[in-house]
Amino acid sequence: MKTAQEYIDSIKKLKLNAYAMGKKIDCPAEHPLIRPSLNAAAMTYELAQDPQYQDLMTAVSHLTGKRINRFTHLHQSTDDLVKKVKMQRLLGQKTGTCFQRCVGMDAINALGSTTFEIDKAMGTNYHERFNKFLLHLQENDLMCDGAMTDPKGDRGKRPSEQEDPDVFLHVVEKKADGIIVRGAKCHQTGALNSHEILVMPTMAMRQEDADYAVSFAVPTDTPGITYILGRQASDTRKMEGGSIDVGNARFGGQECLVVFDNVFVPWERVFMYKEYKFAGMLVERFAGYHRQSYGGCKVGVGDVLIGAVANLADYQGVANASHIKDKIVEMIHLNETLHACGLACSTEGKPTASGTYLIDLLMANVCKLNVTRFPYEIARIAEDIAGGLMVTLPSEHDYRNPETAHYIEKYLRGISGLATECRLRMLRLVENITIGAAAVAYRTESMHGAGPPQAMRVMIARQANLDEKKQFAKDLAGVTDLEKK
Amino acid sequence: MKTAQEYIDSIKKLKLNAYAMGKKIDCPAEHPLIRPSLNAAAMTYELAQDPQYQDLMTAVSHLTGKRINRFTHLHQSTDDLVKKVKMQRLLGQKTGTCFQRCVGMDAINALGSTTFEIDKAMGTNYHERFNKFLLHLQENDLMCDGAMTDPKGDRGKRPSEQEDPDVFLHVVEKKADGIIVRGAKCHQTGALNSHEILVMPTMAMRQEDADYAVSFAVPTDTPGITYILGRQASDTRKMEGGSIDVGNARFGGQECLVVFDNVFVPWERVFMYKEYKFAGMLVERFAGYHRQSYGGCKVGVGDVLIGAVANLADYQGVANASHIKDKIVEMIHLNETLHACGLACSTEGKPTASGTYLIDLLMANVCKLNVTRFPYEIARIAEDIAGGLMVTLPSEHDYRNPETAHYIEKYLRGISGLATECRLRMLRLVENITIGAAAVAYRTESMHGAGPPQAMRVMIARQANLDEKKQFAKDLAGVTDLEKK
Amino acid sequence: MKTAQEYIDSIKKLKLNAYAMGKKIDCPAEHPLIRPSLNAAAMTYELAQDPQYQDLMTAVSHLTGKRINRFTHLHQSTDDLVKKVKMQRLLGQKTGTCFQRCVGMDAINALGSTTFEIDKAMGTNYHERFNKFLLHLQENDLMCDGAMTDPKGDRGKRPSEQEDPDVFLHVVEKKADGIIVRGAKCHQTGALNSHEILVMPTMAMRQEDADYAVSFAVPTDTPGITYILGRQASDTRKMEGGSIDVGNARFGGQECLVVFDNVFVPWERVFMYKEYKFAGMLVERFAGYHRQSYGGCKVGVGDVLIGAVANLADYQGVANASHIKDKIVEMIHLNETLHACGLACSTEGKPTASGTYLIDLLMANVCKLNVTRFPYEIARIAEDIAGGLMVTLPSEHDYRNPETAHYIEKYLRGISGLATECRLRMLRLVENITIGAAAVAYRTESMHGAGPPQAMRVMIARQANLDEKKQFAKDLAGVTDLEKK
Amino acid sequence: MKTAQEYIDSIKKLKLNAYAMGKKIDCPAEHPLIRPSLNAAAMTYELAQDPQYQDLMTAVSHLTGKRINRFTHLHQSTDDLVKKVKMQRLLGQKTGTCFQRCVGMDAINALGSTTFEIDKAMGTNYHERFNKFLLHLQENDLMCDGAMTDPKGDRGKRPSEQEDPDVFLHVVEKKADGIIVRGAKCHQTGALNSHEILVMPTMAMRQEDADYAVSFAVPTDTPGITYILGRQASDTRKMEGGSIDVGNARFGGQECLVVFDNVFVPWERVFMYKEYKFAGMLVERFAGYHRQSYGGCKVGVGDVLIGAVANLADYQGVANASHIKDKIVEMIHLNETLHACGLACSTEGKPTASGTYLIDLLMANVCKLNVTRFPYEIARIAEDIAGGLMVTLPSEHDYRNPETAHYIEKYLRGISGLATECRLRMLRLVENITIGAAAVAYRTESMHGAGPPQAMRVMIARQANLDEKKQFAKDLAGVTDLEKK
Repeated sequence: MKTAQEYIDSIKKLKLNAYAMGKKIDCPAEHPLIRPSLNAAAMTYELAQDPQYQDLMTAVSHLTGKRINRFTHLHQSTDDLVKKVKMQRLLGQKTGTCFQRCVGMDAINALGSTTFEIDKAMGTNYHERFNKFLLHLQENDLMCDGAMTDPKGDRGKRPSEQEDPDVFLHVVEKKADGIIVRGAKCHQTGALNSHEILVMPTMAMRQEDADYAVSFAVPTDTPGITYILGRQASDTRKMEGGSIDVGNARFGGQECLVVFDNVFVPWERVFMYKEYKFAGMLVERFAGYHRQSYGGCKVGVGDVLIGAVANLADYQGVANASHIKDKIVEMIHLNETLHACGLACSTEGKPTASGTYLIDLLMANVCKLNVTRFPYEIARIAEDIAGGLMVTLPSEHDYRNPETAHYIEKYLRGISGLATECRLRMLRLVENITIGAAAVAYRTESMHGAGPPQAMRVMIARQANLDEKKQFAKDLAGVTDLEKK
Repeated sequence: MKTAQEYIDSIKKLKLNAYAMGKKIDCPAEHPLIRPSLNAAAMTYELAQDPQYQDLMTAVSHLTGKRINRFTHLHQSTDDLVKKVKMQRLLGQKTGTCFQRCVGMDAINALGSTTFEIDKAMGTNYHERFNKFLLHLQENDLMCDGAMTDPKGDRGKRPSEQEDPDVFLHVVEKKADGIIVRGAKCHQTGALNSHEILVMPTMAMRQEDADYAVSFAVPTDTPGITYILGRQASDTRKMEGGSIDVGNARFGGQECLVVFDNVFVPWERVFMYKEYKFAGMLVERFAGYHRQSYGGCKVGVGDVLIGAVANLADYQGVANASHIKDKIVEMIHLNETLHACGLACSTEGKPTASGTYLIDLLMANVCKLNVTRFPYEIARIAEDIAGGLMVTLPSEHDYRNPETAHYIEKYLRGISGLATECRLRMLRLVENITIGAAAVAYRTESMHGAGPPQAMRVMIARQANLDEKKQFAKDLAGVTDLEKK
Repeated sequence: MKTAQEYIDSIKKLKLNAYAMGKKIDCPAEHPLIRPSLNAAAMTYELAQDPQYQDLMTAVSHLTGKRINRFTHLHQSTDDLVKKVKMQRLLGQKTGTCFQRCVGMDAINALGSTTFEIDKAMGTNYHERFNKFLLHLQENDLMCDGAMTDPKGDRGKRPSEQEDPDVFLHVVEKKADGIIVRGAKCHQTGALNSHEILVMPTMAMRQEDADYAVSFAVPTDTPGITYILGRQASDTRKMEGGSIDVGNARFGGQECLVVFDNVFVPWERVFMYKEYKFAGMLVERFAGYHRQSYGGCKVGVGDVLIGAVANLADYQGVANASHIKDKIVEMIHLNETLHACGLACSTEGKPTASGTYLIDLLMANVCKLNVTRFPYEIARIAEDIAGGLMVTLPSEHDYRNPETAHYIEKYLRGISGLATECRLRMLRLVENITIGAAAVAYRTESMHGAGPPQAMRVMIARQANLDEKKQFAKDLAGVTDLEKK
Repeated sequence: MKTAQEYIDSIKKLKLNAYAMGKKIDCPAEHPLIRPSLNAAAMTYELAQDPQYQDLMTAVSHLTGKRINRFTHLHQSTDDLVKKVKMQRLLGQKTGTCFQRCVGMDAINALGSTTFEIDKAMGTNYHERFNKFLLHLQENDLMCDGAMTDPKGDRGKRPSEQEDPDVFLHVVEKKADGIIVRGAKCHQTGALNSHEILVMPTMAMRQEDADYAVSFAVPTDTPGITYILGRQASDTRKMEGGSIDVGNARFGGQECLVVFDNVFVPWERVFMYKEYKFAGMLVERFAGYHRQSYGGCKVGVGDVLIGAVANLADYQGVANASHIKDKIVEMIHLNETLHACGLACSTEGKPTASGTYLIDLLMANVCKLNVTRFPYEIARIAEDIAGGLMVTLPSEHDYRNPETAHYIEKYLRGISGLATECRLRMLRLVENITIGAAAVAYRTESMHGAGPPQAMRVMIARQANLDEKKQFAKDLAGVTDLEKK
């Protein structure tokens, strides 16, 4: 397993074609907008080295029997599924943001079982190819970006109906040694600090969309791939050089628009090629795993936010006010409800045909649907407790400017004996998570990551056994026989 | 293990001093207000005989190694805890109401581990006595009422401060062969169809309240005990003789005010005698188990309610309206969130010193706090889908009266080909659960059973590790060292 | 204007063909199930005689210049609209339930302006007929039932598509002196203590449904009309003879299924005859007025419920607990939000062509949509504060039975010095409103009265000027010109 | 009345001692961080010149009978109160943010009636001084900053108990011609583009805090005053030079920390001097007016946000999806509920002793308490509809960089025929309001402006007549006489 430093060094070696703020980036790993993202991902390596977290952070490979980073592991039991969400909560607590390595973990778990089932049905050999790729990830402890969301153009149309066929990524040419693909993937979390990118279709496909039913993996610095960094709220504070206003000086997240402009993929890295009937299974499983993930990572970030406002309540002398205590209880209650859902879909998991464990899909969708709601309410309460100062605080530059520093020091102090800077820093951390750069991870990702709320609703309708419920009611109402008359 | 019929027969033999609607009841088991309650409890016996439910409904006694009804079992693993909530969901689905046997199960589990710990600390021999009692329950497959809630008088005062000392149940005399107790227990679910009643203190006690720190079990027909049946909404429909308006003709719940007027308890049935320091532990554990329970039973009733309104949507021709489908998804989502909490506090359970598994207390309280909210919203949506007819429907008597029957038949029919009576019955089932007799179980019990919401909030505040969360935030904000300056 | 006693006497004289609980009712006004309903309606007469309420309860007729009961008045100003909702709040406070006279008031206001506009468009003379009828109501201070909701059969089909054409009320024959109608109206609030019944179509109609576009008024004892009383939760407590368990001994509501079996209506009482294009206008206006009403009456009942639990908090010694105080504030907040909406749709009202003032339709729908939510939450909080005893309280009969009375007296007492009966009565009042007979008015009527939530959503979508909002955003985003390129 | 340009020019002339981002600002009016704020305030001048808005934007001075900008007017009727909130909604719609002039308007209205009542009670002559100041504002159409919130230090201590006495602004010296004050005011909205600053105490005061009971007004460029600009989320996008990423290129808000370092105030500008008993009245009235304001301005911003996501739904081809339509209805419903509360507290207003109309305090607090909730939910739904792209969109710089522009153009296009830039701009507008610079106005100001939620709860508890409600319940429960026994 790589150390955090080895991970960082390995990322530095990549020759990525990347852009941010209108300029080409020479070394993403050293760019101030991307470095915090690299640091957050590095934490997945760092904690795996720490004996106290070994049980959560590592696992034993079913391929090799060697101890590997859990992020490269295929879940072999419900215990693995549970440890996954607990690991994610831990990392959320330690980074206060998205640490980006889950998408790849969820993608390999979905793809592992799906390739197995494609092969069984179609006589193909994707699973063998996949296992080779997986071994590569495990042996080199690589970070893999899981790429699913296509730009989609007009949402009212299917892939093959779009004006521009490229708004969904697709096969444009089949060659002897591989395929050429074109298109783009949006919202690619951690793409600029990943080693590999694993592409999946964005939704279930029909026969006419078979060219769009393609899955493959390539190194992130493969020719033809361009990365354009997305903007986050308050992102340029990371470039200002200070450590207060940025809120979370060490850690952050990152999303890219990734363009595949006629990228060549060798056959050994192709895991689905026009088997459109299996696109839905892959999407459903990946989404299921990723909806489970949010019952871990967002709970960890929630812990940070709860802790932050509890600190502010201390700093501002209101920790014993009954309404403050009650609001903190409410935040904890909502946060733990999310974790309960993450745990329940894990313990209710079942093995797939390949042996890899799949979460309970109903519960995983319930989990994520709550995640599209509760973090918003937790954030709202946090903003209540933090107070208006969170958004009217003078800048760190003013705090460093002797002409204004003394005023800030004097007037923004909280309780006696506390350094004013503690309060400033804590307010900026809350700002970071609620309306700053990390709000992208805590709010929008909670809403749209692994699909928007409507996607969960459709799955819940499909997974819940409504007919069984109807029958319970008929039996009790005494209409079972009556209905047949 | 008893069959359902054996259970019913055994209850008939009890000589209870019981009152309902202003009259002494000769045989509670045959009284129309109590029979549905007996039937619901009987289902816990019936399903235990059914091979398809054996895994959920029965367990292997840790005392004897024999297969016993799970309701008399002490949980020996997290698997037991999980099966408990799944069993409860099943029974909720089959009865559509409270089946009453959980309180006793939760009481023996709490008392088992608490007596063990009292003995260890105080050199007493309660655990041995308890085990004998437990063996009696297991061998005879008895239903045991767990009695906790005292009337409490003025809630602003402690037991020893009350004007009338009896508003909390207490020891009034110590004798050679046992003790005399006086007081009452409110809200005793299923008391009139139970074999034994197990009394526990209602809250943590201080030294001055030592007389109130008492726990014991006696047969329900012990001299000095009086039962006064509580009224439920629409309860007398059970006495009208029909089968439609009652909503759920076969099953119901029942609560009593149970008065202990100088009742003698032999020492072998005394499980706590003035060990006031352990009253809190017993209450906390019982409440914890019972808060877990609601993540099972209420979910089962929720399934019935969801099924009922889904049937009504069919009957009324609106099942495909997008807003109806969306509301049903919302009901399922909320219901499954409750179950997720019930499962999570189970899988996160840990063994106590005695070996009995205890649920995770934080999660169990989170579970129950959601139960004080979501069933109300599920019921609200159910009333939305059911339509106003649910509360303006003519009576069954009018439906049987030839002068009016044809009008009801004609005008209250739904879709073609459906017997009008199906719609009437289904509407009455929804009424039963939302504002009828079963609403006592689905609403008020969800609110107050195992304690009101504020009790959960206090426990959540106590169980959540807020200091750890504060530290996560301090580390990320960079104030850990700064604070010390 | 009639006194309350004159109103009651006048109702006693009616020869209604009415059924309840399977029997023909001789004198509805003296039937224990209906008398509380009569009493509630009588309060609209009683308070109109009280000088302190004259400003709210009465108005000056625009037809005659005489002072009349406001329930027979057509609103001539926004001030009238405001006084209407304040009058309704007052009556809700005084009766704790539905006082039933609003439907008729809302119906005449909708019909007054609609008949004016039909005449203008079609050259008919409905408005003159209507004014004669209105004069009759005003001069005799009559209570008029407004009847809109048809049984509807299969909700997926239009009136003319139904298997049984009568599931929507319609014209079956045109005669020289009038028309014959057949069908039924559901949920007829206060029908058995009304003098007149005013029928309106249930929804907008198309040409093929012209026979269903009919509006008229007849005395309630017109031959061919049959009334079948609907059941309410716990309704038979009204027949038990006590005064505690019934919760609200004096007042109640009442709904009937009203069947029109070939009823003759003379032309002078026909206000719409196949003018199907105006059915929608009539429905929309009636619904609008009635949605406004709920921002008054339900707020008044909410006041009673808030007061009741505040009394219970006193009785139980918890009035100073911060969580109790906070919950009462929340109840008040929600209740006043409803009233704010009732007021706002009134002050934003505008005159129609006939001069009658119409509420703001957008705001009235917003008002009612909140009414489908907040009373449920208010009730939930009330059940929280009231405690479980509300549903486990022994019956009044047991409280009167010497064998059990002393136990109830002793154990269910609250704070020192308070008669136990006060607590019992207050608990029963809360039960009455939250899960008893008055819950039909407070919950289900809040949900479905004046249409279910989806009906409001459709109207909100139609009334909100979304295009204007889009343009605001386009101007600020700077895309107004760009879009045209 | 000033034109917008005259307003801007007049602000440019001020010699303010202001700092932002660590530097002294030469001309705030031309600083890119402040100019959008100036533009928003200028809109209050621009629309007042527009005949179509004259009725809302202007009023007739009760001092001079001249037509004046409504922002300098004292409300003389409920009609004035209603027009105030409608004016605020209009300005919210036109600016999409806080236009900053309300605080001053609310302050003069509160101070006008309070000075009148102080004089009456204490024989002082504050009201005459105040009227002179008001005339100055009206005649010169000045923008006045209303300054209330003190830094407060340790919230658990009163002003006179603080370690540093200056954390509440107070009188430090009394001189023949005036007073010297020291302290600071936080969150001063629009301070850098105001002509005058009107200081009020931050809360009710006791005798020992009499030095803190001080109110006065001074020109914003009075010696001794220092302004330090607060940071907003994504604020520096205003300094990047583009027009897309900033979201709302023309308008923004602004808050400052304003320090009063021994500032001299002449007696003619002192409106309260140690009359501590009236501090509470002034605070309560100011807060009341300002809580009303939010039922206007935030509703206008809500309109923009609803329009923006409706545009995005069009752009992305999902406008007809039923769940999208339903979500937009929900946003409108919540937004109009806020407006209903703003209107209701206005129409229920009453004259104070001075003749100035005061809003209904209960309703105004109910209004604002809803404002601490609904904008958060509206924003949540907006983020749902907008989609994840809102936070992963590449920067405007990348859109202008030829190396990446074509990819963005190609892949981020929505429906056919729409310029990609329209979509980018609309997404950035939604970002601006939900997690960008305007989120400070739409979220945090909604939470904390005019006081945090707990302040409303305290006022609601105080204003609601709970005793009256208790009596309604006692009458209906039949305990009125019983209680006295």
